[in-house]
Amino acid sequence: MEAFTRICVIGVGLIGGSFGLALKRAGCRGEIVGLGRDASRLDEARRLGAIDRAETDPARALAGCELALVAVPLGAFESVLRAITPHLPADCVITDAGSAKQCVIESARRVLGTLPARFVPGHPIAGAEQSGVAAARADLFSGRRVLLTPTAQTDVQALARARALWAMAGAEVLEMDAVEHDAVLAATSHLPHLLAYALVDCLTEQGARDEVLRYAAGGFRDFTRIAASDAVMWRDICLGNGPAILAALGDYQRTLDALSRAVASQDGTALFDVFTRARAARLRYAQQSGASANDPE
Amino acid sequence: MEAFTRICVIGVGLIGGSFGLALKRAGCRGEIVGLGRDASRLDEARRLGAIDRAETDPARALAGCELALVAVPLGAFESVLRAITPHLPADCVITDAGSAKQCVIESARRVLGTLPARFVPGHPIAGAEQSGVAAARADLFSGRRVLLTPTAQTDVQALARARALWAMAGAEVLEMDAVEHDAVLAATSHLPHLLAYALVDCLTEQGARDEVLRYAAGGFRDFTRIAASDAVMWRDICLGNGPAILAALGDYQRTLDALSRAVASQDGTALFDVFTRARAARLRYAQQSGASANDPE
Repeated sequence: MEAFTRICVIGVGLIGGSFGLALKRAGCRGEIVGLGRDASRLDEARRLGAIDRAETDPARALAGCELALVAVPLGAFESVLRAITPHLPADCVITDAGSAKQCVIESARRVLGTLPARFVPGHPIAGAEQSGVAAARADLFSGRRVLLTPTAQTDVQALARARALWAMAGAEVLEMDAVEHDAVLAATSHLPHLLAYALVDCLTEQGARDEVLRYAAGGFRDFTRIAASDAVMWRDICLGNGPAILAALGDYQRTLDALSRAVASQDGTALFDVFTRARAARLRYAQQSGASANDPE
Repeated sequence: MEAFTRICVIGVGLIGGSFGLALKRAGCRGEIVGLGRDASRLDEARRLGAIDRAETDPARALAGCELALVAVPLGAFESVLRAITPHLPADCVITDAGSAKQCVIESARRVLGTLPARFVPGHPIAGAEQSGVAAARADLFSGRRVLLTPTAQTDVQALARARALWAMAGAEVLEMDAVEHDAVLAATSHLPHLLAYALVDCLTEQGARDEVLRYAAGGFRDFTRIAASDAVMWRDICLGNGPAILAALGDYQRTLDALSRAVASQDGTALFDVFTRARAARLRYAQQSGASANDPE
């Protein structure tokens, strides 16, 4: 296990706070510094044991740090990176927790001029219905995947250090190309969230009556649970991963059009085939992956 | 509580079997006769205590019955009604458990020539991931809604008898117009199921790799759990409730188009508004309705 003497978590919300708690629980003896704008929230994080020291000044926060985790909403990444860059120690590994990776890499290129060897983009596939440090949990990443998407410039040692920390936090760490990451997450996470948001919005808009929702059965509940996720986070994901999301949405709309045509033409065979195929795929998938109460990002 | 001396359940699967178990548990002393085509499945139902007597012959099954519950897939309703009609005692209440109601009413009109006073269309909003009598449970309807959609011809006493039995089975019984039933269920149950089926199908078709599903996060799991439902049942629902489903699908596609345009034009304000509105509606709904592990039909 790599030893760290000082780590900086920038943005101590659900993800940043859970990262600190998880490292502490795993016996990490390095100092965990929390950097943020809101002193009272940072105090709360310190009281909860997620960070050892709270700072609102980047220079003080980052001095002597070996790794900086940027865990802010995707839309704030670029301005945060701009604010911390002058204060980053030369060999400090920079990593992040954003749900889309190409946009983060482009931001880094814009801010830093080039992609530094010590930059390791990352995405923990974990979350919860609540946000904020009060919802942080030491086991949020236990058994969950963290996808690291190193660039061509990322050096092996920086990657190893980011890997080591996420592994210490309990995660299974995988490497993936940023383009593939964004396409896979668009299809399996961003698209389902958009579909759920659209369903709730559609029903409340057209019906304009919550009465309709009174009759909503279990399937609707399952389906729309994820529509209670944080609106800022999802706005930023849509803005940050637009092209991949639009591609996934386009594929989906074509599938839905075909299903709609089968209903309109009363094509029982086509409907039965789709339902049988989807059922088999779903059952196959359910066997592969364990159940988990965690919500995705 | 009304006293029944003999009830016939036609189709002893999850719904019919649970109906029998629930009545028995509630202390119903009348005989529960199961009518079906498969003698071994009927035997299983009898062994499980869901029925008292198993019959494959309609005349023997229906003799002396005061109420007949048709609990077969929607697509089989008309032929089953045709088969049992000659053997129904004159005052026997006929009810059903189909997930769409206008098509059931139309079938009854076709088979019977007119809508009899003793016909009480119904729909228990309950189900489970498994189907078949082996999955039947005495508490399947406990605290769940049963929607009865009496026609203009339905007489008060027949309605009261159907109500009494479902209440005995533990359900909250509500009355609703068949047209409204079909529209509400299309929007809150049939549409979400189609969306989930389309998502699983879209991902497995395009990616053609289950690998993609390995990265699928919790939201996807929630979303697609309902895509493991019975394919015959959902085919029949699509065929039986086509117009209402197409209307709901059309509304949904328009909402999705608008969301897609907001992503394409990077309209953060529109996205934030939709997500905030949907989140509020979802939370409002979650407060109104209790959580339940049951799956919908």
